[in-house]
Amino acid sequence: MKNSIGAKTIIYPTPVLIVGTYDKDEKPNVMAAAWGGISCSNPPCVSISLREATYSHGNIKLNKAFTLNIPSKDQVTEADYFGIVSGRDEDKFASTGLTPVASELVDAPYIDEFPLILELKLVNTLELGLHTQFTGEIMDIKVDTEFTDARGNPDIKKIKPILYDPSGMAYYGIGEFMGRAFSIGKKFKD
Amino acid sequence: MKNSIGAKTIIYPTPVLIVGTYDKDEKPNVMAAAWGGISCSNPPCVSISLREATYSHGNIKLNKAFTLNIPSKDQVTEADYFGIVSGRDEDKFASTGLTPVASELVDAPYIDEFPLILELKLVNTLELGLHTQFTGEIMDIKVDTEFTDARGNPDIKKIKPILYDPSGMAYYGIGEFMGRAFSIGKKFKD
Repeated sequence: MKNSIGAKTIIYPTPVLIVGTYDKDEKPNVMAAAWGGISCSNPPCVSISLREATYSHGNIKLNKAFTLNIPSKDQVTEADYFGIVSGRDEDKFASTGLTPVASELVDAPYIDEFPLILELKLVNTLELGLHTQFTGEIMDIKVDTEFTDARGNPDIKKIKPILYDPSGMAYYGIGEFMGRAFSIGKKFKD
Repeated sequence: MKNSIGAKTIIYPTPVLIVGTYDKDEKPNVMAAAWGGISCSNPPCVSISLREATYSHGNIKLNKAFTLNIPSKDQVTEADYFGIVSGRDEDKFASTGLTPVASELVDAPYIDEFPLILELKLVNTLELGLHTQFTGEIMDIKVDTEFTDARGNPDIKKIKPILYDPSGMAYYGIGEFMGRAFSIGKKFKD
């Protein structure tokens, strides 16, 4: 039996996307965003939603660029910290000892120690209410060579990313392999 | 050392969102979408991106509504099937034996057997290129009572959802608990 629980923001899973930006003084900042996802294949785009009150919101408006940094499970504590404090008040790179690297493609920094990086150019801004949705075109992806498969693509089993549970407000790792996409479902085909 | 792998659509994780719609003859259809995520807290919204070529794309344009159905791991084969064939060619409810239920809130069907359901009213359409991004306002969430925690909220450990790996084109389950959000990161605070 299904119960109605009202209009809450719950889907499973949501990502843990660490958004990298520069402020007006070119100081690098990072924040955590779980509201977002891939939004187009061609051009390749990701959309993320930030509250106007965040420091990163103004930085994206200013520079029209951001990075997305995907943490490994060993970086879950740093990722959570990035969502607790504001870059207005603390230097989050200094606090965590992580290293900002200037993207050569967009006006935003990325985290050297994180395994998977996306560099994005802002292509659309949509006001939805409490959150502003920023859509960025992916200019490049960078991945640490130790975390790739035989073809040089990112390997989820080596990267060991994390996910966010918006109902329980907690992080989880990636679990067991459940099957190949566009394959296991063929058994239902006419 | 980081390698550039070009502008691909890879983040970890992406969700497996089963989109429920009616066609022009009120026939229920479902398709799988991994391009999407929560996009606003107030009003509560989710954005999903579909190619114009899909049957569901036209259905959403027509009815200005859709549901999102979150599968449990035992439903991964059905979820994959929903992304392989078009509702133009096959009746996906008949093929899988799943049961469509008419939402009382929006003009769209949901899957009775899936544990977590969102009912959405279309509030924005954004053309991004190959994909159209549909943003829906969440009117209600329904969850099977056996899958809730002590407070009646969805329990990720009982629902056992799946995630999609766009690099390896495969499904994975949810792994181990990694910590409480807005909590474990406090150790880095000044």
